[in-house]
Amino acid sequence: MDRMSLIGGLEEIVGSSNVLHSPMDMTLYGYDASLGRGMPDVVVLPGSTEEVAGVVALAHGEKVPIIARGSGTNLSGGTIPIRGGIVVHLSRMNRILEIDIPNRTVTVEPGVITLDLQGRLLKEGFTYAPDPASQKVSTIGGNVGENSGGPHCLKYGVTTNHVLGAEVVLHDGSIVCLGGKSQDNPGYDLLGLLVGSEGTLGVVTKMILRILRTPEAVKTMLAIYDSIEDAGNTVSAIIAEGIIPATLEMMDHVVMRAVEESVHAGYPLDAAAVLIIELDGLRDGMERQAGRIREICKANGVREIQVARDDKERARLWAGRKGAFGAMSRLRPSYMVCDGTVPRTRLPEVLNKVLEVGEKYDLVIGNVFHAGDGNLHPLILFDERDEKELAAANAASSEILKICAEAGGTISGEHGIGIEKLEEMSLIFSEADFDAMRRVKHALDPRDILNPGKVIPAAPS
Amino acid sequence: MDRMSLIGGLEEIVGSSNVLHSPMDMTLYGYDASLGRGMPDVVVLPGSTEEVAGVVALAHGEKVPIIARGSGTNLSGGTIPIRGGIVVHLSRMNRILEIDIPNRTVTVEPGVITLDLQGRLLKEGFTYAPDPASQKVSTIGGNVGENSGGPHCLKYGVTTNHVLGAEVVLHDGSIVCLGGKSQDNPGYDLLGLLVGSEGTLGVVTKMILRILRTPEAVKTMLAIYDSIEDAGNTVSAIIAEGIIPATLEMMDHVVMRAVEESVHAGYPLDAAAVLIIELDGLRDGMERQAGRIREICKANGVREIQVARDDKERARLWAGRKGAFGAMSRLRPSYMVCDGTVPRTRLPEVLNKVLEVGEKYDLVIGNVFHAGDGNLHPLILFDERDEKELAAANAASSEILKICAEAGGTISGEHGIGIEKLEEMSLIFSEADFDAMRRVKHALDPRDILNPGKVIPAAPS
Repeated sequence: MDRMSLIGGLEEIVGSSNVLHSPMDMTLYGYDASLGRGMPDVVVLPGSTEEVAGVVALAHGEKVPIIARGSGTNLSGGTIPIRGGIVVHLSRMNRILEIDIPNRTVTVEPGVITLDLQGRLLKEGFTYAPDPASQKVSTIGGNVGENSGGPHCLKYGVTTNHVLGAEVVLHDGSIVCLGGKSQDNPGYDLLGLLVGSEGTLGVVTKMILRILRTPEAVKTMLAIYDSIEDAGNTVSAIIAEGIIPATLEMMDHVVMRAVEESVHAGYPLDAAAVLIIELDGLRDGMERQAGRIREICKANGVREIQVARDDKERARLWAGRKGAFGAMSRLRPSYMVCDGTVPRTRLPEVLNKVLEVGEKYDLVIGNVFHAGDGNLHPLILFDERDEKELAAANAASSEILKICAEAGGTISGEHGIGIEKLEEMSLIFSEADFDAMRRVKHALDPRDILNPGKVIPAAPS
Repeated sequence: MDRMSLIGGLEEIVGSSNVLHSPMDMTLYGYDASLGRGMPDVVVLPGSTEEVAGVVALAHGEKVPIIARGSGTNLSGGTIPIRGGIVVHLSRMNRILEIDIPNRTVTVEPGVITLDLQGRLLKEGFTYAPDPASQKVSTIGGNVGENSGGPHCLKYGVTTNHVLGAEVVLHDGSIVCLGGKSQDNPGYDLLGLLVGSEGTLGVVTKMILRILRTPEAVKTMLAIYDSIEDAGNTVSAIIAEGIIPATLEMMDHVVMRAVEESVHAGYPLDAAAVLIIELDGLRDGMERQAGRIREICKANGVREIQVARDDKERARLWAGRKGAFGAMSRLRPSYMVCDGTVPRTRLPEVLNKVLEVGEKYDLVIGNVFHAGDGNLHPLILFDERDEKELAAANAASSEILKICAEAGGTISGEHGIGIEKLEEMSLIFSEADFDAMRRVKHALDPRDILNPGKVIPAAPS
């Protein structure tokens, strides 16, 4: 089928106003929040599950790639149409279909913006826990595709722990319902398999999510350190004590300085690192728990601890963390975020090695990350127009992921594999692992039309 | 390969003392805690991952079924060798390999008894949350195979929420490592797929589990009701309020009477139902939360609330719940446990329908279950030697599962599908759903040797 026939076929399914095919649109949908670039043949904006099923069935018949996407805020090239094909933008399917308080679930379409859902639930006194940094623009469908994390995932778990059910369009356009409102479901956990599969196994058209009561009380603290090692040791010590804060985030002096210039969050410019420690839960006992954390910080050489006295101060402390990526991006034309995870006891050692990598390649690297999870986010600053610097940044990123893998960690905490980390997958997976993954992919997408070329490296020829 | 050659081949791999093949042994390994019966060709007791891999590779070469098992306490026939083959009993692989407090994980072999692990962790001030009723004899490997639940899973989640990594022997004897110590891992979540797959996708030889700090304080209450409806409404009201107790269990008068005759837990004999409500967490605020629960109970017509004043009283209240299945089994020669789940708001209505089913078939049905999860366990009493009664019990069980499915629930909360619920799978799954599951099964076990005939109904011919 030639491109014009494909466009015609799609227009019949979703209506011509929901099919984009101008050169400008193709360019716009050729990239996401990563360095990669591609070019789709056509973009469709379906309005219903049936329309999605129709589009996928057409693609299946014609063996055309299907790239489902939300806002494209993944940081690994997961939504780049590297082999052309049909980009299915799910932005029109953005309804919250049901809020079921007694069963503590919400049913949503994939195009719902994460923060919009959280805002809506807040009115009922409830919350959806996963809070990726991109929550202002990211969609729930995208979060499910990437199995997104976020600061609060230390206590509450990542996206997969909050997805109870989904309606999914499979490779041939058939529609299945996985899971449901129960905690456990019979049969194979295809839902768990689907979450984080980056659109390579199916297109999610509806999701049932677990919601939680908004915590009664919140306490946010900023612990300031003169050494990054002390900050790292504090993180291990808090968790070893058995305390699970809602968040336990770390920022080093490079990031703090950038943040202060752009957000003015009140971070100390002469410190080596800060921790943002937030407790939530019942108001009773919070003071005592905060006291215990203060003791642990002191035992690990903290310089000073600030406690947010009200919501305004709390928002200010968080504004810095949430604006960190943006603030860093102002320093140089380009940045690259590594996303590696290490056992949290190895944090101080690994952070030192990351510093050494920066020195070796003469690149500025800032660290702002989910320390409680051991999930590092070294931000490498560079200028992508300078080929030598781009090469150095890529080499540094790869080296950092290798350091994480060698420390018993892994190469992605939450940003996905997409295309940017395909090569590094072999740092942590064996050929037997890949073989099992490829078998599953082939079983559920025998024609390899669902976001082809992502997540799993190609089989050795 | 004939049976004697198979036995010889296995003896070479695991040593002759670890291969059982006498008629008596074959009979003993022919059943589990369900009504089904089968007969293996041979039983092996491997001592290492390499031995398991050797056994599976042999079975793969010879196309002989492999049935991995722990203590066989699943309640759905999951470990019955319905097509003969090799039963792999993992009881010798029962070591706790590592307790890693700073990373809050424990690494164990599959044969570790659930309660033994919990006892060992308690010494460190930590716990492994999933607590199936069979925890005194069930193994962690079996829990993973069945994705076991338990009273504490209301607050803490079922087994799959606590498995971070696993070493798995695949269909051809290759060994893969899935997941790890991180919260999230790149690539497809094959680990999630494996948990609850009842040994049909691989044999788990090692597991990394999440451990939690033992709660600082626990409060256990017994709420006594004159109507099962009021008890059911209380459950919904507590959850809707946003309170998640550690457990929220219900027992009806049939079960209470049986328990009192056998365990003497002090349950009132004239009440219609009781709830066992347990709170855990920080000691601060527990009194206030208990007070709020008391108010909700009162608003829903509770007759009386007893609070355990010490560990002894607490143990007494729990002894009744934990001994309920045993107590019921004393009343008649046989019992069958249904395991359906419904949205908790539908509990009162569904419980009434279960009563009607008992009347219709003239069978005693007792209810003891995880009410907070909406996970029913109607216990049907009968005499399996009486063919008419056995048929009535089977019909009643099937009807109850249908009621659950119609109420928007599902046909298994935690006991698995095995062989006993294969037929009922079509109450909740479509042919498209089955097709996706069969594709995955075929991808990971193309010769259909891993616990064949379980979980997924055979494809329509």
